[in-house]
Amino acid sequence: MSPEEFRRHGHAAIDWIADYWASLDELPVRAQVAPGDVRRQLPASAPETPEPFDAVLADLDRIVVPGLTHWQHPRFFAYFPANSSPAAILGDLISSGIGAQGMIWATSPAVTEVEQVVLDWFAEALGLPEAFRSDGPGGGVIQDTASTATFTALLAALHRASGGEARVSGVGDVGWRVYGSTQAHSSLVKAAMMAGLGEEAVHAVAIDPETQAMDVDALRDAIVEDVEAGLRPVMVHVAAGSTSTGAMDDIAAAAEVVREWGVWLHVDAAWAGVAAVCPEHREHLAGVEAADSFVTNPHKWLLTTFDCSTFWVRDRAALTGALSILPEYLRNAATESGEVVDYRDWHPQLGRRFRAIKLWTVLRTYGLEGVRAHVRSGVALAERVADLVAADDRFEMVTDPALSLVVFRLTSGDEQTLAAMEAVNASGEAYLSHTTVNGRAAIRLAVGSWRTTEADVDRTWAALQEAAAVQG
Amino acid sequence: MSPEEFRRHGHAAIDWIADYWASLDELPVRAQVAPGDVRRQLPASAPETPEPFDAVLADLDRIVVPGLTHWQHPRFFAYFPANSSPAAILGDLISSGIGAQGMIWATSPAVTEVEQVVLDWFAEALGLPEAFRSDGPGGGVIQDTASTATFTALLAALHRASGGEARVSGVGDVGWRVYGSTQAHSSLVKAAMMAGLGEEAVHAVAIDPETQAMDVDALRDAIVEDVEAGLRPVMVHVAAGSTSTGAMDDIAAAAEVVREWGVWLHVDAAWAGVAAVCPEHREHLAGVEAADSFVTNPHKWLLTTFDCSTFWVRDRAALTGALSILPEYLRNAATESGEVVDYRDWHPQLGRRFRAIKLWTVLRTYGLEGVRAHVRSGVALAERVADLVAADDRFEMVTDPALSLVVFRLTSGDEQTLAAMEAVNASGEAYLSHTTVNGRAAIRLAVGSWRTTEADVDRTWAALQEAAAVQG
Repeated sequence: MSPEEFRRHGHAAIDWIADYWASLDELPVRAQVAPGDVRRQLPASAPETPEPFDAVLADLDRIVVPGLTHWQHPRFFAYFPANSSPAAILGDLISSGIGAQGMIWATSPAVTEVEQVVLDWFAEALGLPEAFRSDGPGGGVIQDTASTATFTALLAALHRASGGEARVSGVGDVGWRVYGSTQAHSSLVKAAMMAGLGEEAVHAVAIDPETQAMDVDALRDAIVEDVEAGLRPVMVHVAAGSTSTGAMDDIAAAAEVVREWGVWLHVDAAWAGVAAVCPEHREHLAGVEAADSFVTNPHKWLLTTFDCSTFWVRDRAALTGALSILPEYLRNAATESGEVVDYRDWHPQLGRRFRAIKLWTVLRTYGLEGVRAHVRSGVALAERVADLVAADDRFEMVTDPALSLVVFRLTSGDEQTLAAMEAVNASGEAYLSHTTVNGRAAIRLAVGSWRTTEADVDRTWAALQEAAAVQG
Repeated sequence: MSPEEFRRHGHAAIDWIADYWASLDELPVRAQVAPGDVRRQLPASAPETPEPFDAVLADLDRIVVPGLTHWQHPRFFAYFPANSSPAAILGDLISSGIGAQGMIWATSPAVTEVEQVVLDWFAEALGLPEAFRSDGPGGGVIQDTASTATFTALLAALHRASGGEARVSGVGDVGWRVYGSTQAHSSLVKAAMMAGLGEEAVHAVAIDPETQAMDVDALRDAIVEDVEAGLRPVMVHVAAGSTSTGAMDDIAAAAEVVREWGVWLHVDAAWAGVAAVCPEHREHLAGVEAADSFVTNPHKWLLTTFDCSTFWVRDRAALTGALSILPEYLRNAATESGEVVDYRDWHPQLGRRFRAIKLWTVLRTYGLEGVRAHVRSGVALAERVADLVAADDRFEMVTDPALSLVVFRLTSGDEQTLAAMEAVNASGEAYLSHTTVNGRAAIRLAVGSWRTTEADVDRTWAALQEAAAVQG
């Protein structure tokens, strides 16, 4: 592809995206395909000779788009949003064009320094503690996902708790224990599995059935009991916004408990953390100044195209202690001077792209005013849903609305609740997902796209009402 | 950003990249900045009010570009290439626009099915065994980096060797051992650290000083000795192309050794594996049909913008056994039918973007003919470098050229070798990296960019000759 062809096809790709977005409102949100439908339309082998780029675009329209569930659709309300904004897309496009590797400072200094600055900006915007800023012993880094951040936090916790022994001789058989509520994200168990502790190392702490938040007294009891049994508590995971219902664990109360035993406190605010750009939506982070690590994902609600999971630690020495490696070919004067940060030692991967550009572009082109307005719009739309639920006797709220997440059900029962949701999903009108709360089925409606309007919420609600009428 | 603004700024971003690329030849390859130079030009806080996208582009030119080491520069010969082609960039741009999550089949079916097909295409193009294809018990997946692939392979190996116990109760204290040559990539040690085995679990196997490849007799001795000592061999890592010199471990010979003990064989061909698109460059993969897992990175030499690390396993049950989790909110009929693959269980992360589009776009718009021509051009340019080295008495080859990698030194000594390299790097004319081979310093020159021409090689050689003259 010559420079001229790149310009031409590049403009066509941009236009393809703009056209795709313009078509979203008319497309069924959920893919209407069965297993194998996409696959069988594709040839069995790669072509021998070059095909025009336009042929790829045509196949995207013909084969790929019908096989997509459209996460950027204005009526996508399932799981959590994975919001991709124009600003982030263009920022990331530039990153692809630059194509630099930021594994260490020396391999392309701007990759590291822009990331440090943008993470400082973002920490300040969220009201996070000074300790997380890069000018002290802590600092921030962009991880791919919150799963990786939680895993990384656990490795740092093990490093600290073992006095550096874990990286040398392994986690051994000493009975490390990790704590999270029964509503903690599944990545906590996966982290324990990957770190060599096993699923059984995760002590699932009871919740308050009303708020779905961790019962901190039960956490204390669990730790006491484990310590008495000769086990070694290493990390407590608290959720500032659970996946199921957006439940907010009490960070400050958990911090008091962990302080006694010197246990690492990891705050997983993957979805809800970004709401703290609004001063009135920071309550769920109260106590975060006591956290050892904190993660929130701009790639969910905050307009920054996947992947962009922002992760901070209070003491980067534990992190780099757990993960540092220095092969000969990466030795360099800047690293040896101690004046720079080498992000390779902050995550499992070695290679890393220039992900900070997309977050930089979002924060600059929206401004803090703009991202706050976006968050407030999501919260307001969720409140509208909650009002609609309250106004219809066939429905009831399951938990209080959490920021932009609403969890509700049909009063008639689990089967009816799931059938109504499936009817809406199958129609393509909107897309919702389900959960189980205190043993009963519930529908989750998570707002967050920058495209979603009141009209989208109302259309979705009308579809749910229609489905409820059928279910009786 | 309205749809019209997105089109306008999108075209501007494409043009920015085309202009950046056009300027590369005039830019110093290595960044000419000191620690903090980029950082101090950026404001301390995010802006309150929106800034125009053009302001971001202007700051890229003014602040970021001077702080970059230009990995896409035609005279970037350090480390390994991280080649970003027009085709891949546009494919990945489309992926950002679609913004779909492929954590499970059900969350956007085309994301999974296109990836399966493209990995099958690529396996066939590389001449990989049938066992890696998705229509049997194995299959392929795109990982972010080879580090993650190696880590994932180790988790699968531990799952198999422990009969499923590792994920449940941890790796314990049973003395797991992992083997790689002294030239194995540092990610092997990092994988052992992350998996809870510790650095000490890695048995570094001696090499043949001539070829720098693993001494397979020493591997056998190491395993025998460890087994006799009551330790438990779990994985052997062989490098099909080491980072230092491109040394090729003998996969078939290693396979014979591991067969006796039922140890997992992981082939790390991160850089050199893609060369197998050319039938004449498959010799280094001889024996790969016995491998349990194999990784190669299209994001290095093969034109596919980072991140795209293609990873295959012979038996996906070991992989998903080690990594599967199924929270309520991701339960769905397709998964329960067993008819689909859920890639969430193939890697550490949960979320995943539609990375297959970029590899699909590369394979289609270059065609297999095109990617073969690209590989052959890199090999030919490396041969040209080797000829230039041979023709100048002040230089000598350290090892035989390995595909597109040439390792050489000044005959006058280590200090002179490193000083000559640093002089070239500091001049900005070209960028090379160093290594140590049998205790002596050497210069690595890795070709691989689609922009690099004979003239670029010759200019770089002239700069090296000039530096050598100064060093004497």
